[in-house]
Amino acid sequence: MGEPSGCVGIVGLGLIGGSLARDLIARGVDVIAYDRQVERLRALTDATLARVRLVDALHEVAAAQAVVIAVPVTAALSVLDSLAPALTPRHLVMDVGGTKAAIEARAETLGIGDRFVGCHPLAGDHRSGWDASRAGLFAGAPVFVCQPASGGEDRVVAAEEFWRALGAAPVRVGAAAHDQRLGLTSHLPHMLASALVLALQGAGVARAELGPGGRDMTRLAASPPELWTDIALQNADALASALDACEATLRSLRHEIGARDAARIEERLARATRWFDDG
Amino acid sequence: MGEPSGCVGIVGLGLIGGSLARDLIARGVDVIAYDRQVERLRALTDATLARVRLVDALHEVAAAQAVVIAVPVTAALSVLDSLAPALTPRHLVMDVGGTKAAIEARAETLGIGDRFVGCHPLAGDHRSGWDASRAGLFAGAPVFVCQPASGGEDRVVAAEEFWRALGAAPVRVGAAAHDQRLGLTSHLPHMLASALVLALQGAGVARAELGPGGRDMTRLAASPPELWTDIALQNADALASALDACEATLRSLRHEIGARDAARIEERLARATRWFDDG
Repeated sequence: MGEPSGCVGIVGLGLIGGSLARDLIARGVDVIAYDRQVERLRALTDATLARVRLVDALHEVAAAQAVVIAVPVTAALSVLDSLAPALTPRHLVMDVGGTKAAIEARAETLGIGDRFVGCHPLAGDHRSGWDASRAGLFAGAPVFVCQPASGGEDRVVAAEEFWRALGAAPVRVGAAAHDQRLGLTSHLPHMLASALVLALQGAGVARAELGPGGRDMTRLAASPPELWTDIALQNADALASALDACEATLRSLRHEIGARDAARIEERLARATRWFDDG
Repeated sequence: MGEPSGCVGIVGLGLIGGSLARDLIARGVDVIAYDRQVERLRALTDATLARVRLVDALHEVAAAQAVVIAVPVTAALSVLDSLAPALTPRHLVMDVGGTKAAIEARAETLGIGDRFVGCHPLAGDHRSGWDASRAGLFAGAPVFVCQPASGGEDRVVAAEEFWRALGAAPVRVGAAAHDQRLGLTSHLPHMLASALVLALQGAGVARAELGPGGRDMTRLAASPPELWTDIALQNADALASALDACEATLRSLRHEIGARDAARIEERLARATRWFDDG
């Protein structure tokens, strides 16, 4: 392949899969899609959905040579299991999950490491489902594209071209390094937002009481719990380390506030502001 | 008073004081202002500043019957000290700081509790200084207006009318209750943002690596360190309690992630999402 041309299979028409379908169809690419809620989707009146070939069995998406698995990370493992027997060596299978090591390892185990490329577009938000999907979601978005242990360069290049054709910016990375980094940049912030919400909830604070800053700090906690439980489990070690580092800082800050140690508090807060200057 | 008419004195032409000056002048109100950086302000070419009467001595702002102190919370205490001798019983003095108990207590100590009303517009952001000030900053913003221990109802009503004339929505509250609440809704999120930034910084993560969610979660940490050190100190007890509650939740979540306890993680994250449904 090169440009997403001909036909692309998508498993899961949620925020990511639905947005992919919209972009592909707008570019004249045929889309075959499988979704657990196919009946609900068929009942919708939607010009894009009308042009998607919705199939009743997962393996039918393998009629397309490029398949994107766009379901939560744990479900993606099962999808890969089910899809594996239908894949030929000419297929390219990508996923879009927030953790990459587990699914890459599963592809190896299934003997399809040569046709799988783990991908992760930084394009989601706290909403989910087809109704949240939209055209242009990937325009300008970084997409991590994982160089697999046993995969060929041609597949990785094809995956990069797939995303580039949708306006995204591929960033090549190893799966383990990806998970380590995202534990800090994405999974840690999510857990902090949830911890903040739970603390506010416990104190009887309603969302309406928050200013713009507080709303920014809590928004991520509205994300689907099952999706983020999966991510937390699949990246448990990296996330636990990130949480430990953050907790240690928080504990020091709390101690300094308790001790009214103005100099240390200001030194710490000032150090944080310098991070913004460093880009 | 009633509407802000005639003349208003402002101490500190930063984000809040500068925005106040813009709104007042746009409404035909004269503004007398004192700022430590008066020379820098005089050097600027700015149509609004040209209409502000910049004075060289703090007490000169008392030529206006309504005075707003718009400097960081600890500096506001000193400003009140300096201003007190120039105040007559006909004056109304307001501040705009993020903590309210300390300055209200200082007004009592200075014997001007009858002419002081602590105010706190929820209208700041992480930027600061005259250059960040803008017209309409207070439109639609909640403004906490503190019912003082010894102040008369007429002053509180006048303060409420002052803010309402600028399009803000006054919310009456006691100073202690305000500080307790803001410790949770504002000061805690600030400290979490700073702790997150310090953890990322410590791990060598640059800001450019963050997606939209991570950027939302760190933005507050760019706020002026001296301002937030003051707030943390003036509200140390409430903030320390809020930090303890949040830390306890974070520790539980971290433990559950380490133990791969899917059921408890999901239960916790799901509980957080319900907070958004409750408004």
